[in-house]
Amino acid sequence: MSLPAEFHEIARRVNNWGRWGSDDEIGTLNLITDAVVRDAAAGVRTGRRVPLALPLRQDGVQSGLIPGRVNPLHAMVQINQEIFGPGTVACSDDAVTMGLQAGTHWDALPHVSHSGRLYNGRPADSVTAHGGAAFSSIATARHLVSRGVLLDVARAHGTDRLPGGHAVTPEDLEAAQELAGTRVRAGDVVLVRTGQIRAYLAGDREGYAYPSPGLSVRTPEWFHARDVAAVANDTLTFEVFPPEIEDLWLPVHALHLVEMGMLQGQNWNLEELSTACGETGRYTFLLSAMPEPFAGATGTPVAPVAVL
Amino acid sequence: MSLPAEFHEIARRVNNWGRWGSDDEIGTLNLITDAVVRDAAAGVRTGRRVPLALPLRQDGVQSGLIPGRVNPLHAMVQINQEIFGPGTVACSDDAVTMGLQAGTHWDALPHVSHSGRLYNGRPADSVTAHGGAAFSSIATARHLVSRGVLLDVARAHGTDRLPGGHAVTPEDLEAAQELAGTRVRAGDVVLVRTGQIRAYLAGDREGYAYPSPGLSVRTPEWFHARDVAAVANDTLTFEVFPPEIEDLWLPVHALHLVEMGMLQGQNWNLEELSTACGETGRYTFLLSAMPEPFAGATGTPVAPVAVL
Amino acid sequence: MSLPAEFHEIARRVNNWGRWGSDDEIGTLNLITDAVVRDAAAGVRTGRRVPLALPLRQDGVQSGLIPGRVNPLHAMVQINQEIFGPGTVACSDDAVTMGLQAGTHWDALPHVSHSGRLYNGRPADSVTAHGGAAFSSIATARHLVSRGVLLDVARAHGTDRLPGGHAVTPEDLEAAQELAGTRVRAGDVVLVRTGQIRAYLAGDREGYAYPSPGLSVRTPEWFHARDVAAVANDTLTFEVFPPEIEDLWLPVHALHLVEMGMLQGQNWNLEELSTACGETGRYTFLLSAMPEPFAGATGTPVAPVAVL
Amino acid sequence: MSLPAEFHEIARRVNNWGRWGSDDEIGTLNLITDAVVRDAAAGVRTGRRVPLALPLRQDGVQSGLIPGRVNPLHAMVQINQEIFGPGTVACSDDAVTMGLQAGTHWDALPHVSHSGRLYNGRPADSVTAHGGAAFSSIATARHLVSRGVLLDVARAHGTDRLPGGHAVTPEDLEAAQELAGTRVRAGDVVLVRTGQIRAYLAGDREGYAYPSPGLSVRTPEWFHARDVAAVANDTLTFEVFPPEIEDLWLPVHALHLVEMGMLQGQNWNLEELSTACGETGRYTFLLSAMPEPFAGATGTPVAPVAVL
Repeated sequence: MSLPAEFHEIARRVNNWGRWGSDDEIGTLNLITDAVVRDAAAGVRTGRRVPLALPLRQDGVQSGLIPGRVNPLHAMVQINQEIFGPGTVACSDDAVTMGLQAGTHWDALPHVSHSGRLYNGRPADSVTAHGGAAFSSIATARHLVSRGVLLDVARAHGTDRLPGGHAVTPEDLEAAQELAGTRVRAGDVVLVRTGQIRAYLAGDREGYAYPSPGLSVRTPEWFHARDVAAVANDTLTFEVFPPEIEDLWLPVHALHLVEMGMLQGQNWNLEELSTACGETGRYTFLLSAMPEPFAGATGTPVAPVAVL
Repeated sequence: MSLPAEFHEIARRVNNWGRWGSDDEIGTLNLITDAVVRDAAAGVRTGRRVPLALPLRQDGVQSGLIPGRVNPLHAMVQINQEIFGPGTVACSDDAVTMGLQAGTHWDALPHVSHSGRLYNGRPADSVTAHGGAAFSSIATARHLVSRGVLLDVARAHGTDRLPGGHAVTPEDLEAAQELAGTRVRAGDVVLVRTGQIRAYLAGDREGYAYPSPGLSVRTPEWFHARDVAAVANDTLTFEVFPPEIEDLWLPVHALHLVEMGMLQGQNWNLEELSTACGETGRYTFLLSAMPEPFAGATGTPVAPVAVL
Repeated sequence: MSLPAEFHEIARRVNNWGRWGSDDEIGTLNLITDAVVRDAAAGVRTGRRVPLALPLRQDGVQSGLIPGRVNPLHAMVQINQEIFGPGTVACSDDAVTMGLQAGTHWDALPHVSHSGRLYNGRPADSVTAHGGAAFSSIATARHLVSRGVLLDVARAHGTDRLPGGHAVTPEDLEAAQELAGTRVRAGDVVLVRTGQIRAYLAGDREGYAYPSPGLSVRTPEWFHARDVAAVANDTLTFEVFPPEIEDLWLPVHALHLVEMGMLQGQNWNLEELSTACGETGRYTFLLSAMPEPFAGATGTPVAPVAVL
Repeated sequence: MSLPAEFHEIARRVNNWGRWGSDDEIGTLNLITDAVVRDAAAGVRTGRRVPLALPLRQDGVQSGLIPGRVNPLHAMVQINQEIFGPGTVACSDDAVTMGLQAGTHWDALPHVSHSGRLYNGRPADSVTAHGGAAFSSIATARHLVSRGVLLDVARAHGTDRLPGGHAVTPEDLEAAQELAGTRVRAGDVVLVRTGQIRAYLAGDREGYAYPSPGLSVRTPEWFHARDVAAVANDTLTFEVFPPEIEDLWLPVHALHLVEMGMLQGQNWNLEELSTACGETGRYTFLLSAMPEPFAGATGTPVAPVAVL
């Protein structure tokens, strides 16, 4: 089995290999110039901050289906320990074990490969157990602040939550952009709201996972045409699940991460943000979504914040 | 043994219990109003982003002295796994185990207790192995964006790195403020640079740990008088080590976290920021330093970013 | 709420506090004398070894109900790494995170407390986050080899698996002893087979957990009267679940671990052993079930083996 | 670079590939027949049990040199938690993260490869991040009980501890066998004592690691000629370090694990056993050293016990 011709055609159209040099490791993050950030800061109106991360807890979004992607196991390793003797100041410390892609996270570019290649043509086998990803690890993505745009596809459809299996199309993005009263532009980080995370928030972890609305294989071209820097949404799978084309699994992952070199975010909680944007009618904001710089990692938890 | 009278006198002067109500869990973060953030955003000049986190790696700043505070153990749990069959898109996933206070981090308020009490008078034993901190866990600190001010004490002293054991005094902070050409004000997050982290960056992990310059027990009153929201610096111990007063260990921790209810940051890399501020002569910026929302945790890794 | 009078009456009858001195940490393991082990070795007939542990894997018996008791997360940290240069011998290394009570395991004595006490009257608060159990941690149980006796209650009932909720009574143990053609004696490790683990082996993890057959609150006196050294069985809960007496949860745990100072084993796979003993008609063997000596731990995975 | 001719010549002489069939995964463990175990049990004289594992603790033998091979991080996840309500029986649970080769352990056969091959000719790339070792994982070694023989090379040399860099030769093994008054025979597990672990026990972790006495590249032929089932010793490196032949690293690992298919044990504490055997003059015993059955793992902690 190999990837179908249709995939390769789209791949050719959105490919960014070499665009920022053969040594480049950060792909579309290059599109976030200082000017983009300066303008995004200048666009802040109220100073209201809306956090977008789910709490990190053992009862997180993972249900065990993906081997190794474990919800956080939090444990205290010291509790009120008077390390310098009785009656002194006491310390509590904790430790955690977790899958880096378990909660609200960024996928780093080497999170997926296809046809033996990573972003910018690097060989897939440059990801090893000893050191992880040699190129484009999440620790290379060190400046992730930009203008954020919420494309509230659910609201544009007049619903709280798109149905499972709904493929978010370029037309859906256009409609949401219309609702937002803005134009997506170079360097933007686009947040696509489907409302799917409401299932998890209501306690339905299985319903959250599958079936899921998500991005259509047709959307990478839309992002590419606008020079978007990164895309995140409020689903576990990011792209529509089950997939649109039989036996073509994770095409959007492959197009974004491998071909375009564009970071993806998953399990972002966009509910409070949707309400806030709906109230003011402004869907743009300063977005800070700094990856934790895990050396060699193919993903990371992130605690994004929108400053309105 | 108990804490000396001198400690209790300072504690009385800086205590914030009840100031934001008996139910309050976030202490001085209350001082970051939307207006503070709006003004901080308006102060952005160039859009340059300076990251302040050390890479998270097994060869991190911890040398094993503090039980349980382990450097990150990063491991791949899938490498280029074609989960949907041969020839399909392949995935790599990773997992990590780490002490939450191991790298560049925030101490949450319940990270220390004294005399059986946490911030706002909560009982120390509300931190348990089952669920961690019941109050003021790091997951409650969800809006940590504000104006940042770099107080470059090392530069004000005309040095790259203060000597080990140098207690950073209110006078030092005044001199650094003078250098910065600004006034620290309510809601600011203050970053105090000692240059100590240069030892770690140069490969001297033991020299980084001890002896260390750090905040004097006299500084909490200075921060309190200015209604500072949070303080971070570039040392392992945060406060001067060995301590200024014999047998009075970690007094600054106790004053900040327990009495004032003010978050502390440690192991922040302020070197690039120091250079950047030195070049422009501006020592203020928009700071985003969002905690990862670990439920019940007494600390968290953080990837802060200064937007200049 | 407190424990009912009925519980306290049984507790009084089986209590071993002080029996081996006020400093004792290992309870009924004291009953395994060298002579017991020598005779057990002399009883070996064929040399056939039957392992009793379930594989340690992420798809283990835990379903997530018990916070923190996570199935093993196994990860490679090096794969065929030529650490000394190209063309040299290559190494693979792995790491694991797991709950110590997650798989086939021993409960150490401080795994439970009641009324603020552990075995031998130690205070329950001697178990801390800093160092774990100060007394009777699993690392003190260093000589766990003895005669093993299989009491095959399921077979004595003419079934492969006792029904969920079946309380294994002293009468059941007598019948199984009759079937075994032996008498349980001082220092023996008794393995009680219910057949319940067949549910897990058949893929029904929920059915394995609940409802479950298990030991009745009346059995500790039976073990006590015979000076049994330790007891293990093939269930997740060890004792019958739901419990026999309303609102009296885990009484057998409290009687064995706290009152008697007797180790308990859970999730032992006794299926192959049952077949082997059924074939020969001999239900006794040399049993080696050495705990991994985790310092301070309240339990440990174990890989027991019966030598027939 | 490639392995020298000398290595390949020895490899040819000790190679066991195909000896137990092309499907075999357990190599020399095939040599432990039931009769071997029956006779070993019959050889038990006193029933005294001597444990051979070091405690598993954060302050273990690893000093951080080997990436990913971390000492155990033990953490309580519940402490005296009254899960069924106030006044009920309270539970304590713990969790651990550790390198599987960190303490007293077995190396599984796929722990090393050379020239792209594992034991029995399996391809080295059958070890993957997804599932670990597909062949000969430690979970396949399920019956590890046999006769143990202590070859006390240190005592035969009239010393407590061989000097660092001492290569234990076949002549050393002969002398120790002479001292033991026995002949090593098919199916035996041989324990080679160098006394090196006394450095660790005395607090010198660095001195324990390097330089180290250990097995010479000439010993695999000695073990092969006698059909030994497994070999363990009391060092971190197993073989002499630095190596005997320049640029030939880990030859004994490659010969034992890859060519012979013979398990190796490291960091075994043989001090009490040495004393016990010295007192009685008997150096043989029943040895139980059951691996924890981690699925896919290339090693495991083990808690071996000698029954004298």
